[in-house]
Amino acid sequence: MGQKNRIDLNSDVGESFGNYKLGLDEEVIPLITSANIACGFHAGDPGVMEKTIALAKKHGVAPGAHPGFPDLMGFGRRNIDATFEEIKGYVAYQVGALHAFAAMEGLRLQHVKPHGALYNMAFKNFGIWEAVAEVISRLGQNLILVAMAGPGRERLEAVGSKYGVRIAYEFFADRAYNRDGSLVSRREPGAIIHDRDKAAERVLKLIREGKVVAIDGTEIPLSADTICVHGDNPAAVMLTKKLRETLAGAGIEVAPMGNFL
Amino acid sequence: MGQKNRIDLNSDVGESFGNYKLGLDEEVIPLITSANIACGFHAGDPGVMEKTIALAKKHGVAPGAHPGFPDLMGFGRRNIDATFEEIKGYVAYQVGALHAFAAMEGLRLQHVKPHGALYNMAFKNFGIWEAVAEVISRLGQNLILVAMAGPGRERLEAVGSKYGVRIAYEFFADRAYNRDGSLVSRREPGAIIHDRDKAAERVLKLIREGKVVAIDGTEIPLSADTICVHGDNPAAVMLTKKLRETLAGAGIEVAPMGNFL
Amino acid sequence: MGQKNRIDLNSDVGESFGNYKLGLDEEVIPLITSANIACGFHAGDPGVMEKTIALAKKHGVAPGAHPGFPDLMGFGRRNIDATFEEIKGYVAYQVGALHAFAAMEGLRLQHVKPHGALYNMAFKNFGIWEAVAEVISRLGQNLILVAMAGPGRERLEAVGSKYGVRIAYEFFADRAYNRDGSLVSRREPGAIIHDRDKAAERVLKLIREGKVVAIDGTEIPLSADTICVHGDNPAAVMLTKKLRETLAGAGIEVAPMGNFL
Amino acid sequence: MGQKNRIDLNSDVGESFGNYKLGLDEEVIPLITSANIACGFHAGDPGVMEKTIALAKKHGVAPGAHPGFPDLMGFGRRNIDATFEEIKGYVAYQVGALHAFAAMEGLRLQHVKPHGALYNMAFKNFGIWEAVAEVISRLGQNLILVAMAGPGRERLEAVGSKYGVRIAYEFFADRAYNRDGSLVSRREPGAIIHDRDKAAERVLKLIREGKVVAIDGTEIPLSADTICVHGDNPAAVMLTKKLRETLAGAGIEVAPMGNFL
Repeated sequence: MGQKNRIDLNSDVGESFGNYKLGLDEEVIPLITSANIACGFHAGDPGVMEKTIALAKKHGVAPGAHPGFPDLMGFGRRNIDATFEEIKGYVAYQVGALHAFAAMEGLRLQHVKPHGALYNMAFKNFGIWEAVAEVISRLGQNLILVAMAGPGRERLEAVGSKYGVRIAYEFFADRAYNRDGSLVSRREPGAIIHDRDKAAERVLKLIREGKVVAIDGTEIPLSADTICVHGDNPAAVMLTKKLRETLAGAGIEVAPMGNFL
Repeated sequence: MGQKNRIDLNSDVGESFGNYKLGLDEEVIPLITSANIACGFHAGDPGVMEKTIALAKKHGVAPGAHPGFPDLMGFGRRNIDATFEEIKGYVAYQVGALHAFAAMEGLRLQHVKPHGALYNMAFKNFGIWEAVAEVISRLGQNLILVAMAGPGRERLEAVGSKYGVRIAYEFFADRAYNRDGSLVSRREPGAIIHDRDKAAERVLKLIREGKVVAIDGTEIPLSADTICVHGDNPAAVMLTKKLRETLAGAGIEVAPMGNFL
Repeated sequence: MGQKNRIDLNSDVGESFGNYKLGLDEEVIPLITSANIACGFHAGDPGVMEKTIALAKKHGVAPGAHPGFPDLMGFGRRNIDATFEEIKGYVAYQVGALHAFAAMEGLRLQHVKPHGALYNMAFKNFGIWEAVAEVISRLGQNLILVAMAGPGRERLEAVGSKYGVRIAYEFFADRAYNRDGSLVSRREPGAIIHDRDKAAERVLKLIREGKVVAIDGTEIPLSADTICVHGDNPAAVMLTKKLRETLAGAGIEVAPMGNFL
Repeated sequence: MGQKNRIDLNSDVGESFGNYKLGLDEEVIPLITSANIACGFHAGDPGVMEKTIALAKKHGVAPGAHPGFPDLMGFGRRNIDATFEEIKGYVAYQVGALHAFAAMEGLRLQHVKPHGALYNMAFKNFGIWEAVAEVISRLGQNLILVAMAGPGRERLEAVGSKYGVRIAYEFFADRAYNRDGSLVSRREPGAIIHDRDKAAERVLKLIREGKVVAIDGTEIPLSADTICVHGDNPAAVMLTKKLRETLAGAGIEVAPMGNFL
């Protein structure tokens, strides 16, 4: 968990659907290095996937799948009591669908990051991480699994080892952390860091020192391979720009996680 | 269009969805050599796709994609006024999704056969064949495109040449043909051949002589690489069994189209 | 909870979808008095709803709504972490949609019975019963809410009183009961009663004596307004026929719950 | 087709879905008198329908159903080759669903206006108008059917008479008209009128004189009961405001179509 001189920036993109536009993809994709692309279950559709892959290609951004529950109405944010078998099927289906659009542009997928409720449920039920890792392993494309840096790391490492899957850990630039390395709930005061300078400083400290200041003021060790940023509103894009500037000024290379993991 | 000594048998399978069962897949898959597997738009779901791929693997049947319109309520049988761009996206998405399930079982997809309204519309609007061929070409997996033997063959050949895509032509064992090589409409008397012996004889004549007797009694030249059979009812399965016996008795090899195309 | 001389028989019907057929509606609807009709979220579609309402009308069966979660792939059987507001919207939407088909045939809806996961979740989270009762109350059609007879009755009565909604309690003819009036889990041995004579006897005892013999042999008091029967397989239809005969032989009137509640 | 002193203003609203927001409903609903509310097939969902009904109630706007094809991905704008029976089912289902949300707020629906491809197809295939009118007639709620003022009026009148359904004719404030009363195709230059003053003047002339100046400069007779305005962008809202001011300045009453039809 020591010093690094490079980092990845990932963001959820391709979340539009049909006539519905969501997110500032054109603005955020040029700023990131890894794109988590929705695959048509909770967001995204074939046309949106095609356009998002094209945008990623244009800006040299590594594409990855962002599979979610089949719940467009709930944007994949509601827990669904699906079996591991069902989850494996959902992940395989979505990764495969996105893979086709990448292949048509001569690209390969780099990673898989579960979306919304699927991501959150996985931290309470590691069988979901196993399910996703098993799919990645069986797909045989050497995809990286993206998960949150924090308390569950040892168990995630074990899942990665069991299935021979690389795991990238992500840090949230605009979120406060508890002393145990978990995220402060959005319902708590101070959970979101709105100050761009402060957020950029935190990322810098994380990369340089492998540390983050928790909400209680204590300094905790934390290591991450990629920083999760957002593109769903202008302020989020501004934060991402600020991050890029700060990282450039500090001589830290920004590159797709697959380049160094 | 001369004599052959081998043929493929294809059937639409994997059309169940969730709690809904459709088709006698367990019975028909052991009898065929190429499986057209629904991909979740007009029928099929991730769990069904996984099971169907497993069944195909077990019986040495070559899996292929059977993409359709996103119209589960209409089973993909209703014309939808989609653009070529939309159709390309739908086909890529579905082929990619099925590819994942095949890859997880160590299989590769062999072919793509458009389903229902998409298939029928394509014969009236060859831009659809171009769209599907372009997707196949860009996917780079050397997939075979399955289309109906009959009047449009020259134009299909041109599409295949343009995109570097192999085309397999299919013959319908239980359907009567017009003098121009097109299918007799289901609304016409005699359109469906219910007599299993007669249907098997027609297939044999097609393979051996490259000829079929049209509904008006004339003998017309027709060549096909694969015979389309059905598994949606017991009589259809019986016909397929009869076909297998007839072909075996005649010393005609039955093999996946990819083995000889 | 004393003796009665009439009872309602309800069954889940209208669960087909598009090209998919599910359930022996033509056989079971003539045998029941109240039909729980799927409304297009977990099963059913507009065409199926229209046909099912017509069948109910033909046989003098009172139609009711069987709303479920928007989860066709999971047949509404998976818990979805929806808010009460979302659930109210789902129930209102589905009841309204079915109401239209009833109105077009000159019928009024009689009842609402939540389906699958929505029904099961409600017994663990009575806020769901409140949500459904509130919708019924606000719809102003005096619909009956159908719920399971058993341990939660007092709380259900309170919900009914609060919203001015009549509640019908249902008994499962083919299920064993625990001593506390709850259903024996399907995972336990003896949970399902396959013996038609025994099942019919239990229903008779319930109606005449307000009692049921629990799985541990004790006799417990239980009162119900309607018996839930099934039409998804021939054996279930046979049981329903047997029930009708037994009830007729015992001089017990079979009538829609709305006639006597 | 003479002078009138009142008019209705209608707009398509409630087109958001889940996490996706579409249209400036909060801004346009206060300016109109009749709201065409999406019903969940091509746009809208239960939560959106509830909120839109509440907005309509708050501003004294008469709610109506805006049913479309089951094609969320295509926003109901693609022709689907559905049968009249299927269309009847789709319309009944959606009108019923919206009716429930209106009933819960103590409102009644005023009208039905087919959306997108369903609306456009109906002018080429009057069997669709018959289908919609039949549903309205059988629903027995005396709903008004909204259709375009122009060439098909006599046939629409005949449909209305046959089914006992009132028809409201709508005029498009921002669209140029051909000499025969049809809309100039959006692909033609001059099809859209961007000048707000000019658009308002046209509406005034229509109401006062029953006339409109066609794109070729000729004055043609045209009569309408309601003006279709838009709320999908700020300019459209500005036009609607301008219209309201112009109508107020001219002493023309603006009221829901149901008040005077």
